[in-house]
Amino acid sequence: MNGIRILVTGGTFDKAYDELSGSLFFQDSHVPEMLRLGRSCLKVEVRTLMMVDSLDMSDADRTSILEHCRSCPRDRILVTHGTDRMEVTARLLGQADLDKTIVLTGAMVPYKFGSSDGLFNLGAALAFAQVLPRGVYVAMNGRALPWDRVRKNRKTGMFEEIEA
Amino acid sequence: MNGIRILVTGGTFDKAYDELSGSLFFQDSHVPEMLRLGRSCLKVEVRTLMMVDSLDMSDADRTSILEHCRSCPRDRILVTHGTDRMEVTARLLGQADLDKTIVLTGAMVPYKFGSSDGLFNLGAALAFAQVLPRGVYVAMNGRALPWDRVRKNRKTGMFEEIEA
Amino acid sequence: MNGIRILVTGGTFDKAYDELSGSLFFQDSHVPEMLRLGRSCLKVEVRTLMMVDSLDMSDADRTSILEHCRSCPRDRILVTHGTDRMEVTARLLGQADLDKTIVLTGAMVPYKFGSSDGLFNLGAALAFAQVLPRGVYVAMNGRALPWDRVRKNRKTGMFEEIEA
Amino acid sequence: MNGIRILVTGGTFDKAYDELSGSLFFQDSHVPEMLRLGRSCLKVEVRTLMMVDSLDMSDADRTSILEHCRSCPRDRILVTHGTDRMEVTARLLGQADLDKTIVLTGAMVPYKFGSSDGLFNLGAALAFAQVLPRGVYVAMNGRALPWDRVRKNRKTGMFEEIEA
Repeated sequence: MNGIRILVTGGTFDKAYDELSGSLFFQDSHVPEMLRLGRSCLKVEVRTLMMVDSLDMSDADRTSILEHCRSCPRDRILVTHGTDRMEVTARLLGQADLDKTIVLTGAMVPYKFGSSDGLFNLGAALAFAQVLPRGVYVAMNGRALPWDRVRKNRKTGMFEEIEA
Repeated sequence: MNGIRILVTGGTFDKAYDELSGSLFFQDSHVPEMLRLGRSCLKVEVRTLMMVDSLDMSDADRTSILEHCRSCPRDRILVTHGTDRMEVTARLLGQADLDKTIVLTGAMVPYKFGSSDGLFNLGAALAFAQVLPRGVYVAMNGRALPWDRVRKNRKTGMFEEIEA
Repeated sequence: MNGIRILVTGGTFDKAYDELSGSLFFQDSHVPEMLRLGRSCLKVEVRTLMMVDSLDMSDADRTSILEHCRSCPRDRILVTHGTDRMEVTARLLGQADLDKTIVLTGAMVPYKFGSSDGLFNLGAALAFAQVLPRGVYVAMNGRALPWDRVRKNRKTGMFEEIEA
Repeated sequence: MNGIRILVTGGTFDKAYDELSGSLFFQDSHVPEMLRLGRSCLKVEVRTLMMVDSLDMSDADRTSILEHCRSCPRDRILVTHGTDRMEVTARLLGQADLDKTIVLTGAMVPYKFGSSDGLFNLGAALAFAQVLPRGVYVAMNGRALPWDRVRKNRKTGMFEEIEA
């Protein structure tokens, strides 16, 4: 195990509740706290690239994620990401055809909400990042789907496998 | 994906708090609820074999787990288990040398306690169960260690890799 | 104890997270679940009058709350309410000078968020509703302030006592 | 409001889970954290007298609690306490007939468990401590019962009113 780089980009995962304005916002990432909760002993480095809702992610943001994946000395990378455009970023990373294993994950409900899937997804995504062969995957709903065969079903909120 | 059989045996994972006696006990497994929380869309079948603390697990209990692994039509199996004797059961399953992928997992803190690692571990274990080659593994602390190279460090509570 | 009528009007208290749209919304009230969690053995009747953010509450809404307080056969009433306009509704109810004890409460963070003050506030408000003399009070931050001497400090989120 | 003294004695309220031994134990009190969660702006002083299960409380322990209530400069006191012998300590305090308002509270489930009644009870007990006349009360299940008319029903876990 040579270590995993975690690139934080925001998404529902990391949304917090601002009790003065009554709205959801981004503060610091919850990923370090989640790793502690999971008693993780993995060698990971967490880098926050941005803290945005994926609906607000620009092409420049996505290019920045790609460049970080490319230049990172690790060949196993986890990207936390909003679910609404996760497949778009996955596609960009997949088409770049890097010689690395890149796993994107996120959450349907903020980690701080009692009913969040975040901790489950983080555990699964870290496992997939360690053992899957090179390629780009979306790890949601307990499984990992290749970048060119995944789509979020906006009605159910589930990530489905589609024809490549 | 041909489905994963989940064999529930109890352990800290599933301990509940009995508010009348003030002690921890076993009721029903939390695994189905955890799968819902994780928005899992995996094809899984959950079977409760027993609900025991692994310190109370007998040789007959362990043999029963082995027989269920052997006779199960699935070749990908997840066993939830108390952490104190997880390595003992893993060894028995490993020495049986079945042509299956078997992953054991558990939790250091009951799922219902706020600070539980259970959901993280379940996510990771399900991921490992899908992609690791045949063999028997302990999935804790974010990683999967082979049955003949794992030991729980009783001082730190972490599962460590040892020489086979 | 002749029973307490709980009038639900919405507010942060009862906001849920819609995982498909990524926004906060109202579904059913969490008050019954919270009473169970508090192992309450109080004789209460819960009535949902509306489910709105108090910023969206109209004069007609407020008049409806007043009419329900007036016509209700109970003389001890708890109103759950958004915090932003709680003092406005309290003033209307206070000026009506009913021969009843009416306590308004709410939450700064939705009950379903881990860091919610909701359960604490509900416990305090129910206690105040049982023992305070007739009058209208805002129960927040652990204390009960009379309707004509309370103001929400929008910078700190705390309810402060002011000159009548 | 001249301030409330909170005397911490332990009880289920404050039990934590020791993940190495798999048992419940006492560490520091959760009361300060719970007051923050409740956004309490009450003037309180928290003193930890002991950290014991009320089943393990000795007569000397109970006498110590009484002496602290007597010598405390505040006349409004909250005692956190295990539920199993809460009525015994309440009786001792009640028979001492101090010129103070003393409220005992606790929890059926540890605060750190998801399903705890602790935060609800703390909110209610603080409210009762502020407004009830001098006397000794047990604040559980949403209400306050006088020390000479309360008994824990060991089958239901509820505190019931009995004949004085």
